[in-house]
Amino acid sequence: MNKSSVLDKIKPGIRAISAYSLEEYDYDIKINQNENPNDVPRELKQEVLDFALTRSWSRYPPFIPAELFEGLAGYTGWKTDGILVGNGSNELIQAIMTVFLKPGDKLVIPAPTFTLYRLLGNISGADVIEVPLKSDYTYDCDALEEKFLSVGDIVVICSPNNPTGALYPIERLENILKKTSCPVIVDEAYFEFSRVTATKFLDSYDNLIILRTFSKAFSLAGLRIGYALMNPELAREVEKAKLPYNIDFFSITAGAKLLENLNMLEKSTKEIIAERDPMIQTMNSIDGVTAYPSKANFILFETPYDPKSVFSGLLEDGILVRDVSSYPMLGKALRATVSTPQDNRRFIQSLERLMKGGIDAK
Amino acid sequence: MNKSSVLDKIKPGIRAISAYSLEEYDYDIKINQNENPNDVPRELKQEVLDFALTRSWSRYPPFIPAELFEGLAGYTGWKTDGILVGNGSNELIQAIMTVFLKPGDKLVIPAPTFTLYRLLGNISGADVIEVPLKSDYTYDCDALEEKFLSVGDIVVICSPNNPTGALYPIERLENILKKTSCPVIVDEAYFEFSRVTATKFLDSYDNLIILRTFSKAFSLAGLRIGYALMNPELAREVEKAKLPYNIDFFSITAGAKLLENLNMLEKSTKEIIAERDPMIQTMNSIDGVTAYPSKANFILFETPYDPKSVFSGLLEDGILVRDVSSYPMLGKALRATVSTPQDNRRFIQSLERLMKGGIDAK
Repeated sequence: MNKSSVLDKIKPGIRAISAYSLEEYDYDIKINQNENPNDVPRELKQEVLDFALTRSWSRYPPFIPAELFEGLAGYTGWKTDGILVGNGSNELIQAIMTVFLKPGDKLVIPAPTFTLYRLLGNISGADVIEVPLKSDYTYDCDALEEKFLSVGDIVVICSPNNPTGALYPIERLENILKKTSCPVIVDEAYFEFSRVTATKFLDSYDNLIILRTFSKAFSLAGLRIGYALMNPELAREVEKAKLPYNIDFFSITAGAKLLENLNMLEKSTKEIIAERDPMIQTMNSIDGVTAYPSKANFILFETPYDPKSVFSGLLEDGILVRDVSSYPMLGKALRATVSTPQDNRRFIQSLERLMKGGIDAK
Repeated sequence: MNKSSVLDKIKPGIRAISAYSLEEYDYDIKINQNENPNDVPRELKQEVLDFALTRSWSRYPPFIPAELFEGLAGYTGWKTDGILVGNGSNELIQAIMTVFLKPGDKLVIPAPTFTLYRLLGNISGADVIEVPLKSDYTYDCDALEEKFLSVGDIVVICSPNNPTGALYPIERLENILKKTSCPVIVDEAYFEFSRVTATKFLDSYDNLIILRTFSKAFSLAGLRIGYALMNPELAREVEKAKLPYNIDFFSITAGAKLLENLNMLEKSTKEIIAERDPMIQTMNSIDGVTAYPSKANFILFETPYDPKSVFSGLLEDGILVRDVSSYPMLGKALRATVSTPQDNRRFIQSLERLMKGGIDAK
């Protein structure tokens, strides 16, 4: 008698999920993941490396990375005991969903948005309810409020929204917070490029959770640090679903060091913000291109052509963007990170070439 | 009208959990976490640091860390597509439980064992069924087989078991594997110190999952890398519950570098194994001390005194051990990591002093 396969023991909801994946390509200019084009300055890297040479690698990281918490408290203006640090903010989203969501609970998210919310909701067994953006890819606040307050158990609002770029209007946020005790997660991964934050509501609303990351403005995507701000009592509960020793000593050290050198962050962020609006304008001046307003470090754009052809055409010029055409509503769209002035110029030139006949019309 | 608290929205099962925690102490000799006393050699550290200086920190780690997978395939003799790498093996245990366990499912574990299995099982909403070890702290294979095969949905076997040190007899493992298609997790965190592994069963049994770590023999507790070996089809499913980019570029680089320099591992591991049995013998020669056989890099021991007093007495001499007296069956026990010959000697001297009247008899 053959016994059955272990695969039959996996939850059907998990088997039905398509895994998050990303193809790898050759490129000169990488503007597909909203990374910061500016590396951490060499002298700061050297300070972290000097510490890493003397610190024993065989010893666990500190159970509580105090220097990182204190730096974050200073940077955000929030209490250290209301801060959680994760292996990327992904880990914190996962922990939050784990403590709140039972199978069949309703997770409300905008559509399109960052794909991981749906994936993690599905893994928790929740039903995911999508509220479409308006046709100009700004938030439909009325629809989102109505849906969440009537049927939702948890909502994730990505502001500015990835991959579209618009903010959730901050004055509308309080409208949600005050009408429910269900958790409202505001993902501010791109906060430093929008300079709009919901932190002022943290004191009044214990159901507000703000997510942030070191992967964008802080130039630390390679080291995986995210953090969350919330009421301290709630933080103690979410902490239970977070693994102990989830951040290694090297990332802790690098994160704390950057928080001591915020001037470097300021400079790099200003450069990117200064590039963004002129870049959108230039893109819109190209025949066939529609580029959308953005408060983040990326730009969503559409053309009349098959996005796969645009993606390939750009890649022929060594430029790697993100084809987001499989997202809801975005059948014609791609996303490009705002990079250095030189990178941005090369991207624009390549896009111009393609729009002037470099692509077979579809 | 006051609205209710967000805390009321948290699953009751989560609220009931006590968080994993660890107090911090001052010490000279740290033998409380089964860390390797030997740091990674300076020249290997320098190679990793040289790479880290040139590699941009602002770029995400590779989606698939190929060099780490290839190194692990060489080291374990298993297929790359049957390997998963996690942020410590904790993350992999969590992912495995997430894909298999529904609320009310039965997780079978030995007792006492590593506390995280129970915690992660509780977080998944599973019922945790403990099967006591025998009175000499070896596995009660009959009881474990009987319990798991009759009511269990998943079993975790820690071999050598933490904090007690005995192996699960390898010939008994196949008895379980062949009689069920439910997942059997064998945590071999201390494999390098026992040199006994279940890898030979991987080809025949798709329900076997072996966990390993870089935190012990590999001297990388500070950088958080664990891995799991299993059937490739199963790996694709468990992968879905694992976060993308879960290992940062620095840890990937360090892990891959160590796998290219296994001679260093060999040397350090041999030294620790050579210390272990004589140390157990010496401990047993001290009046009042019972030290148990161990196939790991730690030793469980009991005394007639309150373990808190023994812990404090050792700490007065600068020696930090682990008080494990809150574990099932272990009311009189503590655990000490096998360290360098010098550290071990100081620990033994301190223990001798305490047993010769340094503690008020209880």
